[in-house]
Parts: sequence; structure tokens; C-alpha cells
Amino acid sequence: MRIAIVGCGQLSRMMALAGIPFGIEFSFINDSDNDDTRCVDGLGSVVKLSDYWQVGQDAQALFDALGKPDTVSVEKEQLDIQILQALAPYTRVNPCVDAVLACQHRNKEKSLLARLGIPSSPSLYCVSAKEAMDKLKLPMVAKSCSDGYDGKNQWVLKTPADVEHFDSLNMQDYIIEAWIKFEREVSIVSARGLNGAIVHYDITENEHQNGILKKSIAPAANVSAALTKKAQSYMESLLTELDYVGVMAMECFVLNDELIINELAPRVHNSGHWTQIGSVTCQFENHVRALAGIELGSTQILGSVGMLNLIGTDIPSVNEMSQALCGNSKLYWYNKVPRPGRKLGHINFLAADAETLSQAMQPLAKVVL
Amino acid sequence: MRIAIVGCGQLSRMMALAGIPFGIEFSFINDSDNDDTRCVDGLGSVVKLSDYWQVGQDAQALFDALGKPDTVSVEKEQLDIQILQALAPYTRVNPCVDAVLACQHRNKEKSLLARLGIPSSPSLYCVSAKEAMDKLKLPMVAKSCSDGYDGKNQWVLKTPADVEHFDSLNMQDYIIEAWIKFEREVSIVSARGLNGAIVHYDITENEHQNGILKKSIAPAANVSAALTKKAQSYMESLLTELDYVGVMAMECFVLNDELIINELAPRVHNSGHWTQIGSVTCQFENHVRALAGIELGSTQILGSVGMLNLIGTDIPSVNEMSQALCGNSKLYWYNKVPRPGRKLGHINFLAADAETLSQAMQPLAKVVL
Repeated sequence: MRIAIVGCGQLSRMMALAGIPFGIEFSFINDSDNDDTRCVDGLGSVVKLSDYWQVGQDAQALFDALGKPDTVSVEKEQLDIQILQALAPYTRVNPCVDAVLACQHRNKEKSLLARLGIPSSPSLYCVSAKEAMDKLKLPMVAKSCSDGYDGKNQWVLKTPADVEHFDSLNMQDYIIEAWIKFEREVSIVSARGLNGAIVHYDITENEHQNGILKKSIAPAANVSAALTKKAQSYMESLLTELDYVGVMAMECFVLNDELIINELAPRVHNSGHWTQIGSVTCQFENHVRALAGIELGSTQILGSVGMLNLIGTDIPSVNEMSQALCGNSKLYWYNKVPRPGRKLGHINFLAADAETLSQAMQPLAKVVL
Repeated sequence: MRIAIVGCGQLSRMMALAGIPFGIEFSFINDSDNDDTRCVDGLGSVVKLSDYWQVGQDAQALFDALGKPDTVSVEKEQLDIQILQALAPYTRVNPCVDAVLACQHRNKEKSLLARLGIPSSPSLYCVSAKEAMDKLKLPMVAKSCSDGYDGKNQWVLKTPADVEHFDSLNMQDYIIEAWIKFEREVSIVSARGLNGAIVHYDITENEHQNGILKKSIAPAANVSAALTKKAQSYMESLLTELDYVGVMAMECFVLNDELIINELAPRVHNSGHWTQIGSVTCQFENHVRALAGIELGSTQILGSVGMLNLIGTDIPSVNEMSQALCGNSKLYWYNKVPRPGRKLGHINFLAADAETLSQAMQPLAKVVL
């Protein structure tokens, strides 16, 4: 069994580390000539896309260079969809092209959600901010439809001056959303197997700084059974509708015990990293099991679980961080060259209850947040 | 941080897979020109011992070829101890040379156990089987002091004819032990950190076939608190006496609620493989944490846990085995070329209780045992 993944980042790294024990081999498509591939060094062959494939060509050479994989998957939604389209005649693409397409464009995602009756914030596609201001009222947020992640290519519009400035940028392909005064942000990570079976992880509470995830806690506190059921049923609608295979993540705002969907990710997700220490089967393994047609593993949660992202150059060294670990925390280092704002690793924590978890996380949170 | 390991088998593979997430790099010494190194392919550089080092040379070239590791460890006790002795001036050797020495020779091991007041079966060193028969009575078992594992180089002596035959072999360096009519075999796996802290895993019950481990169950059923305490105190005596760093395993016979120590292993151990699914921190990670000076991880057990070894050529293919997994079982495949009697992989099972575990293991046990 061989799995090829588009992308050479930490998510590919962790999928490979979860899959290698099953005897699965990996190959990776480096679709960005700038990016280094240190995250996946040694974990499989790396194929530089431009050496094997140009848009419009057939993908036989690329498929061969990848070692004729049984399936192709992704670690990101922002990729040239034609890579997946070109490989589709040669091998299974999971999640399928349509699923990635739906999640890589904010307006298509909005349409999908609307079609399935899943709430997301009111938005307008490619109208001037001035016009949007009349309909949605300030504050609003403008987002590029396809170039935004980790808070990039987003503009918060609070004042008429912000509106005027945004319109002067002459952006293409964007949406403007009503600003949701949410109480908190949560996410749910689920997986659908090749046989259609679906499993869910516990709902996670997330804290962002400047649009980048810094901290996750699972299970999210004070989530009603009704809210959990709602989140799971939204996920089941989406996964079934898209004939999805693999792990999917849904980021949500919580407001008055309702969920407003902010974003879908057709892949393993940073807010599911805690599953590595806190669940019988982590999200990476379940993604691999889904792709390989192996029955999905138990998503049972093992206690109160937390995750801290290690971002940028202003954090201790990997050795210092290792020395700061306690018996219930683990380090996941991505082997990247440190750069400001770059995700370099994360630390997971497991505890018997939320209070103990909070105490265990505090010393490291002080240093890295 | 870089760890070098003597040996390129499945234990090295699983130590590396457990250590890579911590940003630790690995290198491996291939000390056997015959063995393939497929288990560790991609997980670090492999150094062929004979290319860099001969007995009597200093080991600078070997140390350099290994990437100047911060520490050197082993995946087996049957190795040329001079490798470790030669590397000791350059880097930390963990477990230390004396610990490996003590465990690689059955009579030295017996002496160590006796010195610490830890019971093992009555035995005689290098006396004729005829003489031993007078003192120990039949049946007995003769064992090579340094060439035996997985039941190899052992002779069960049941009759005077067996005794005569063994003596005619003119063996060197062996012990003859009284045959213990044990009720069952158990083992305990423990780890000692660089700072001297010790953690224990739950006691495991093991089933062997022809001297090879086939099946483990943890926690072992009906183990009294007194027996557990005894096992842990034996381990603590040994680990402290040897100033041990890393994971150690102790195989024991159980007889009348007493432990009789059969064998020590100065390394991660097949009977601890269940910890990969059944414990917050598996034995491989704790060995790595010990070597790297990271606080040892929690050994808390997550339920009733079982392991089946996949041995030889008479088992289903890795793909068939994957398809037979359920949500609470995981496959660990070693990437080896199948050969009769060779350990090719194992499957771990996790369940809420022993009864459910037994049911979950049954279908696969039928096929592979």
C-alpha cells in the first residue's frame, strides 16, 4: 500500500509517521519550489512537481514518479486542483476532487453549507465593501476566497474609512462577511472511512492570536449534548454529500448555543493535534486508515487534553522544550527551519480533569504564548 | 539530539518512530553483515560496522560516521560488547556497558540476581549434565550462556539419554537449570530516567510457542498486589544497582504466588509492545525519553490490552491483516522479508475488559497463532 500526499509540511510528516507502522509507504508531492521538505525527510520519496508535470499534460510520469500510489491525498486545500484532476484517472483521490474544490474557495464552501442547511455567517460575494456595508452593517470582515489561511488575506472593516480603503485595493474573488460577535471558537474533527462509516472526535475549544491557532482544549467545556449532536449531524451531512474519505475539520463560532460555521478543512487539522496524546486513535492514523480502507480506529478521549502551538523564533530551543516536558506532555517537533510566524511544533498535554490540565499547561503556556 | 542504536531490527524501528516526533535524529549500527536493514530504512543513517571499526581500533571514525551521537543504545544484548566499550569514551552509553554485560551472559545474570537476593531457578555453570542431574534432578534445561534467545540454543533434558546426548555435544559456556514447573509466565517492563526516576508498566502475561513469544495480555489476570510490589522492587534493585538508563524487561515464572526470574533484557522488549496501544506512553517512547533526559512519560494503562506476534511465512499478507483490524486494534509491520520463524510484525488490541479483549482477539488469533 502506498499513499501519495500533496504537500511536504508537518501534516504530511505526521500522517506518514502514523501510517508507517501499518507497513504503508509514502511519497510526497512538493508543489512549491520555495518550500523546503525537511518535515518529511526520510519518511518517503519527495517528487518535485515541476520536474514531472505541467498543467495540460497527462500525469503518467508524475504517477510513476510517486511510485504508482494506491491513493493520493492532501495536507492542504490551497493547491492547484489540476494536480488532483490529472492524477484521478490513475489512482483514487481521497478526499475527492469535488471535496477539495468545495473547501478551497470560500464562496463555494458557503454555497455548499447553505445547500445543506448548515449555518454560516451572512456574506456577499464580490460586491463592493460600500454596498456590503449597507446590507451587512459594520463591522465586517473581507476574505480572499482562495488565498487565506492562518488569518492571511483578511481585512477587518470597522469604519467607513476601512471600507473605502478595502474598495481601493480592487481585490478580485473575495467575500465580505458580517462580523460575528462569537462567544468562543470550537472545532470538530471527524473521519469517514472508505466504507462510509463515520467517527467523530470530541469538540475542541480553540484560541487564536492574529488568526493563528495557539491553543486547543478538548473536550471543550460546557458544550451541551444538543450542540454536540448538531455539530456531528452537520459533519455527517457534509461527509456523506461529498462522498468524503478521510479526516475533515469544521471550525465554528459559538453564539447562544448555536454553531455558525466559519471554515471547513478537507484534511487533518491543527485543532485535532491533541488526538495524538488524548485519543485511542489520532486523527493522522484515522486519515490513513480511511485511505487504506482499514476500519476506523476508536476516537475515545482519554481525559482532559490540551495543545500549545510552537510558533516563530521567539520560543525556546527544541532541547529546552524537551526538558520542560512533564510525564503527561509530549513534544511534536516538525524539523523546520525557524522563521517568524512559522509553526515549528506543538506540545500535547493529558490530564485527569480540566483543572489539572490547566495547571500542567501553565508553565509552558507562559513561555510560548 | 541524536541517538545511535546498535542493531537495525524492529526494536530500533519502533524506537526511532517514537523518537522522531521529539525532533530527535537517529543513526543505526549494522553489526551483522548478513542482516538487511529494511526495518529502519529512511528513519536515520545506517552505518555498517565493519566499514568503520575493527576490534582494538579506537572508535573515532565510527562515532563520526554515526553523526557524533549524544548517546548510544542497543536493541539487543547479543552484540560484541567491545562496540559499546569503544564508543564509551566518545559518548554516553545507555544502558551502560556493565548492564549489557550482565544481561548478555546467563551466568553473570544469575550472579547479579543472586547478589541482589532476587530468586531465579537453581542452576549450575559449565558442569556436565550428568553431574547436574545428581544435584538438580531431571527434568532440567541446558542453555548456552550467550547465544540463546527465542528458545535457540536450549536443550530440554528429560531422560538420562538426553543427558548423555548433551554431554556428548561438548558445549562450552552454558548453564544447566532445574526445570521450573511454572503456572504461567509473566514479565515486567520498567524504565529508569537519566535522573534516576523509575516507572513501571503493568505486569504482562505471556504465552510462548517453541520458545518464541506469541501472545501477551496486560494487565496479567489475578496478580496479587504483593506480587506486583515484589516485581517492582526487584526491578528497582536491578535498575539502581546497574545505574541503568532506559527500559529494561524482566521475564518471570510464577509459582505459588512467587516470582522466579527467567531472564533480563537490557532493552525494550516484545512483551512490552502492547504499551503502544495500551498506555499513555509506550515503552519505545520512554526509552527515548530516558536517553534524551526527558521526564519519563506516564505508564498508565488504558484498559485490557493484548498483543499477537506475526511470525513466519504462514500468516496472511500485510494487506489482508490490515483489512482484518477492528476499531480497537492496530497493526505494526516491520517491513521485513518474510522467512520461517521470523517476527514480521504484531497486532495490538485494546478493550474495556478482559472478556471483551479475548473476543476481539479471537478471530485474528485463530489465523496467526
